[in-house]
Amino acid sequence: MDRYLIVSTDGHAGLPMEGYRDYLEAKYHAAFDEALPLQREMTRKAEEKFLISEFNTKWRRDVGDGLRGAWDGAVRNRIIDDDGVAAEVLFPDGITEMNAPPFGAGLSLKPWGVDPELQWAGARAHNRWIAQFCKEDPVRRIGLAIVLMLYDVDAALAEVKWAHDNGLRGILIPALMGDKDAYNHPKYYPVWQFCAEHNMVVHTHSGPSPDYNFALPGAMGVYLTEFAWWASRPMWHLIFGGVFEQFPRLKFVITEVSEFWIPALLELMDVRASVKHTSGKLGDFRSNLTMAPSEYFRRNCWVGASALFDEGSAAVRHEIGIGNVMWGTDYPHPEGSWPKTREKLLTYLRGMPESELEPILGGNAVECYALDRRQLDPIAQRIGPLKSDFIDAAA
Amino acid sequence: MDRYLIVSTDGHAGLPMEGYRDYLEAKYHAAFDEALPLQREMTRKAEEKFLISEFNTKWRRDVGDGLRGAWDGAVRNRIIDDDGVAAEVLFPDGITEMNAPPFGAGLSLKPWGVDPELQWAGARAHNRWIAQFCKEDPVRRIGLAIVLMLYDVDAALAEVKWAHDNGLRGILIPALMGDKDAYNHPKYYPVWQFCAEHNMVVHTHSGPSPDYNFALPGAMGVYLTEFAWWASRPMWHLIFGGVFEQFPRLKFVITEVSEFWIPALLELMDVRASVKHTSGKLGDFRSNLTMAPSEYFRRNCWVGASALFDEGSAAVRHEIGIGNVMWGTDYPHPEGSWPKTREKLLTYLRGMPESELEPILGGNAVECYALDRRQLDPIAQRIGPLKSDFIDAAA
Repeated sequence: MDRYLIVSTDGHAGLPMEGYRDYLEAKYHAAFDEALPLQREMTRKAEEKFLISEFNTKWRRDVGDGLRGAWDGAVRNRIIDDDGVAAEVLFPDGITEMNAPPFGAGLSLKPWGVDPELQWAGARAHNRWIAQFCKEDPVRRIGLAIVLMLYDVDAALAEVKWAHDNGLRGILIPALMGDKDAYNHPKYYPVWQFCAEHNMVVHTHSGPSPDYNFALPGAMGVYLTEFAWWASRPMWHLIFGGVFEQFPRLKFVITEVSEFWIPALLELMDVRASVKHTSGKLGDFRSNLTMAPSEYFRRNCWVGASALFDEGSAAVRHEIGIGNVMWGTDYPHPEGSWPKTREKLLTYLRGMPESELEPILGGNAVECYALDRRQLDPIAQRIGPLKSDFIDAAA
Repeated sequence: MDRYLIVSTDGHAGLPMEGYRDYLEAKYHAAFDEALPLQREMTRKAEEKFLISEFNTKWRRDVGDGLRGAWDGAVRNRIIDDDGVAAEVLFPDGITEMNAPPFGAGLSLKPWGVDPELQWAGARAHNRWIAQFCKEDPVRRIGLAIVLMLYDVDAALAEVKWAHDNGLRGILIPALMGDKDAYNHPKYYPVWQFCAEHNMVVHTHSGPSPDYNFALPGAMGVYLTEFAWWASRPMWHLIFGGVFEQFPRLKFVITEVSEFWIPALLELMDVRASVKHTSGKLGDFRSNLTMAPSEYFRRNCWVGASALFDEGSAAVRHEIGIGNVMWGTDYPHPEGSWPKTREKLLTYLRGMPESELEPILGGNAVECYALDRRQLDPIAQRIGPLKSDFIDAAA
């Protein structure tokens, strides 16, 4: 092949809000109708806060009908063709096109402030829709189910099984644990076991945070300093909890958390797991582990590298592990590489050897999600970026 | 001088629990008598969890009567003489000698789960005692008042003024903010202003964390991965909140958080504060700042480097800033360098040039706390470690 296979591990898809009604169980329709104006208003407020109007207006003007690809398969395929992307991992969407799933079941997934039964109804509505959306093009669309792990493990397990039976390839779990049992609790083992045995890849995604008061000066800077920590927090619960020790084939992906800081996290966990004079008084904190935390990371975890993948992230790719970084475009969100993925790939990755570009752009995702390369390669051969363009003539 | 002046920026002092009764306002005596057995039991449980008995028993056997120095000035001066330490910054104590201040006013300072009035009463009892303890030897004892910032700013300001009038040199504030207004709230400005104008140094100290379920596997590993983040979190609220912009002379110290990871934090904050494509949609998050976050750190913040100061911390001292690291022994806690400070200093710091050792061991603290070097130097000349011992003959 003279072109790279690109599998974007950070895509977003979701129906316009009102569209989810048809995928909800009928008994939740009344609650849905009541909540819809409220959800619109909350989303509008979130848009004001997280997508300032100056930026928003210009951006929307430039992207044309591209945002429709969040739910319109024909538009989506045209857009990702243009962007050079053969396949995508599909998270739910958010504020961009006012298309989060109902009842707080969207990306931010807080396990508080919402009736769990309703949140589950919203999650299932999305899962039913995304399963159908992916069946329309199962080679290019790698769908994730929203699974509300923290309320009831039996319900979570049932939903993961449903998702697997219906062609979805992984799950998105709440990153924030609130006052619920943390992810190092053994009660979650049945879900991890099923995921490990059926290659259902477990994900968190940036976005969730506690309820900051954004009226305070610098609150957005605090959010920016903390968002990746909140999104990644479940990972070290799984690592130190011995979950990857119990389930060596379990796969966990943290998405859109930026990458440059990951080596520091790996060092931090390894230092903390070392027996030192300073931690000796704390007693046993690693007898359930046979490897260093960074070794579990390299065996069981991946970074969905989107949005902030730039020079800084490229510089530390070896420290993270070439096998643990998976490119993503974040389509159709404004902070990602779309609609200039071809150009941005060259800006940040030109000069990187093929032996590294191949896994980061697509090969790692093929392995992580157990994709069928024979079906993907012909697509990449048609629309993927030319390998020769990445050769740095100056080098 | 042929000896180094050592100012330990991490010492702990506190009365045996029952001793605080005499420093409490009489109206709280009944509540104190009721709470005392409960506090004993909670401390015993905390000791079981954070100070495993195997470690504890051996350690206590080895340190003799040294623990009495937590409240006995004569013992304390003998101990720090032996350890080579001229002066110390004194935080409240914790579980080591069952001597936390009453009503949850100790190191962990959670702004929840306790009656604020009682917690204030406990804090004031400690403040009254520590002020007296420091007056016994004002050159060697740099006392901090416990100030419960998050409940009522007027009360906090009044206590800071009292502390200043009574010879204390700084304050310990709660690191955990719970559901209270975060430290980037302008309502706290009067306290920061007083502290800036009167060189009352503001501190957080490691220890506080949310209520983990320590019965879960790996919970201690999670705590170890997170404790420094929880303790340091107020710092980036102050930085991004523009507090150091408003009060350029305000001084803030994070203590016993370990040091090796600080350069990664500085990089993280600086990247997050940069205008990038990815953050553009979020709007204004830095117009209240005139410098990079790491520049505020270097001007306004220090690391109280104790316990985990080892090869890793020594290696990154330049990245943190030679002027921002202050050695501490953590006496009388078991994870610090006491009673082997002289030996451990040589293990980790031998070969470091005098131009770096001098500020890290004492010079930075002299500047930070505005100490009187003419009174400290004669003590150091008597008990400080010989400078010549730090010269690495092999180098």
